[in-house]
Amino acid sequence: MELNNPETLRQVEACSDLYERALAENDVQVLDDLFWNGPEVVRYGVGENLYGAEEIAAFRRSRKGGSPPRRNLRRTITAIGTESAVVSLEFQREGSDRIGRQMQTWIRTDNGWKILAAHVSLMAARPETERPAL
Amino acid sequence: MELNNPETLRQVEACSDLYERALAENDVQVLDDLFWNGPEVVRYGVGENLYGAEEIAAFRRSRKGGSPPRRNLRRTITAIGTESAVVSLEFQREGSDRIGRQMQTWIRTDNGWKILAAHVSLMAARPETERPAL
Repeated sequence: MELNNPETLRQVEACSDLYERALAENDVQVLDDLFWNGPEVVRYGVGENLYGAEEIAAFRRSRKGGSPPRRNLRRTITAIGTESAVVSLEFQREGSDRIGRQMQTWIRTDNGWKILAAHVSLMAARPETERPAL
Repeated sequence: MELNNPETLRQVEACSDLYERALAENDVQVLDDLFWNGPEVVRYGVGENLYGAEEIAAFRRSRKGGSPPRRNLRRTITAIGTESAVVSLEFQREGSDRIGRQMQTWIRTDNGWKILAAHVSLMAARPETERPAL
């Protein structure tokens, strides 16, 4: 298993850039198109768990104003062979001091790279070394 | 790109079962062993963002009592070809009514299946359709 094939990294980085731009602009058509269009896709959002392309598309359309404006702090991309990759990203929303995290698993398809699984969350205020966050 | 090859699903399901058992028993040796042992691995936990195998192993050893006892509610596994897979899992911690989510991307290596990326979080109380969680 080769990790971080340079050409694969380059392709996924470009797709991630495209996704972040569409998110900032609430371009739901592009966001839909960058997700896998099938029942297998999962999106855990900050406040909802969505299964399948239809639930995700419906959520985007019902979310007032789209994703809250945010600043991306750190992004790590790991390519898995040449057919899949993980994009991990830390962000901070405007008006909040909490750290957000977004992790996506992308797959190469006949129609380009698509997000098969995504998880977005806001980190708890303290690390869980001392006590669990409940 | 074939999704959900049955034999691959079977293998990853067995690895996920092993991981959940080790988590419940706080068997840090097994947990370490099921994570990719390299700088590429990322673990976003409920209250911490960890990069590389060393940070993750150190966290496990500093966490008092290990992962809080939890009940797994729903698990979805999607195999990507025969070399990687995503495991998505909803859980509830004892003494909490919040829904937790755990998403892992596994890769097949010469030493068996390993977690290359993981994200664990507690879901916000409300979906973000009406207003963002800050």
